[in-house]
Amino acid sequence: MRVSYLGTAYSGFQTQLNADTVQDQIEKAIHRLTGDDIKIHSSGRTDKGVHARGQVFHFHTKSIIPIKRWRMALNARLPDDIVIEDVNEVPLEFHARRSAKRKTYRYRINTNLLPNIFTRFYEFHHPAPLLVDEMRIALQFFVGTHDFTSFCSLKSDKDSHERTIYEASLEFTPTTNLNGTSDRGIIEIYLTGNGFLYNMVRIIVGTLIEIGEGKKNALDVPLILQAKNRSLSGPTAVAGGLTLWHVEYSGEQEKQDHLD
Amino acid sequence: MRVSYLGTAYSGFQTQLNADTVQDQIEKAIHRLTGDDIKIHSSGRTDKGVHARGQVFHFHTKSIIPIKRWRMALNARLPDDIVIEDVNEVPLEFHARRSAKRKTYRYRINTNLLPNIFTRFYEFHHPAPLLVDEMRIALQFFVGTHDFTSFCSLKSDKDSHERTIYEASLEFTPTTNLNGTSDRGIIEIYLTGNGFLYNMVRIIVGTLIEIGEGKKNALDVPLILQAKNRSLSGPTAVAGGLTLWHVEYSGEQEKQDHLD
Repeated sequence: MRVSYLGTAYSGFQTQLNADTVQDQIEKAIHRLTGDDIKIHSSGRTDKGVHARGQVFHFHTKSIIPIKRWRMALNARLPDDIVIEDVNEVPLEFHARRSAKRKTYRYRINTNLLPNIFTRFYEFHHPAPLLVDEMRIALQFFVGTHDFTSFCSLKSDKDSHERTIYEASLEFTPTTNLNGTSDRGIIEIYLTGNGFLYNMVRIIVGTLIEIGEGKKNALDVPLILQAKNRSLSGPTAVAGGLTLWHVEYSGEQEKQDHLD
Repeated sequence: MRVSYLGTAYSGFQTQLNADTVQDQIEKAIHRLTGDDIKIHSSGRTDKGVHARGQVFHFHTKSIIPIKRWRMALNARLPDDIVIEDVNEVPLEFHARRSAKRKTYRYRINTNLLPNIFTRFYEFHHPAPLLVDEMRIALQFFVGTHDFTSFCSLKSDKDSHERTIYEASLEFTPTTNLNGTSDRGIIEIYLTGNGFLYNMVRIIVGTLIEIGEGKKNALDVPLILQAKNRSLSGPTAVAGGLTLWHVEYSGEQEKQDHLD
């Protein structure tokens, strides 16, 4: 199943003690529908406050409910900020995390002077201009296979910090304010890779923001990567600007545009 | 001052007994800033759940705070879903309601199968296709000066129901879903007039939706207008899809695009 959610109200995707998570809500909805206690498996956790446009999860069920009925039946039992987008029956060997080939995240920054009441839930408001061209140059240094130790949380428990970024792009959309005069605009950063470490996208973005502010240079990025030292990269950008955009599996078209 | 707000959490703009309104929040923020109890005057009330991108209000103050400081000072004292966009000193004879020349409302309809978690706060989800061309034809019958008795709430207390619609447009944006297949799309209806009666935009839109569903014809609109009978028009469309888009005053450029 593909699911979209606004993460604002949740303590992340994955079940944890004494917290309300997206996974809990989905498992409760499945329980209400089938009576069964089923554990779902996602393509990966998302942190507290992070959103998803195309998170994927799988589970096993003996339910005889036809596959076509599941989407509407679950959506009727889910809160308004979680929507099942797509339901498919998959081979038994499919695993939402292990079978994933590519993952895309989006980070959205509003650099206008004022927050936008309509979009503020899923963007970071940075009310000062950023050097967009410098950020775009810096972003390309992340493409390829690197050890991302400098760009992951010290809490990471992974054996290897080597990951591959296949594509990275920065889209800048100038905006006009109420009076017809131009305002600074919206930055959307897309990162596609084979997997992401704990806080990796948010630390990459936090570093790009420091580059955009002139506190670091684009050419610092390869040096920071080489150093494998978290203290050299930028801060972890706030969760609310991040959206798990898309998870791709083999058999899917490899190239996906940034669809709305 | 121009103010944008997400109306979801409020009982409309205007102060009323035992309710939390946008006006209350703004007056509280002014009180916190100046210590004064000031009553503000808006370009017109908006209903419970209706949003604004460019609501305008005025007030009189003896405060010596420089005009340039007000915006940030008030925004720091307002909740996140209310943002002061613009502050101007105006001649004493200016009145936010009486001086307004043109008002524009937008109504947004998501006709896709599923709700969109990112935009659902300010759109009406109508998960069935609509006859957009027929709606567009119907919309043009509203342009001009008419008695809008058939398109206002029975609770209206106005002496005259004659109003002028200067411009009306319907923008249709097809959307693509996660799988790259096309979905039904987004309809945005803009209405600009010299003033709007109680529920007038929402009843016009409710009627357009019935036309889009094939329950009424575009050619019914002139007959319904002539009949001056509320029971002949469609239902009042839900508040959440409506946004007060722009209020124009003399001296401003007459033609404004639908800016984002």
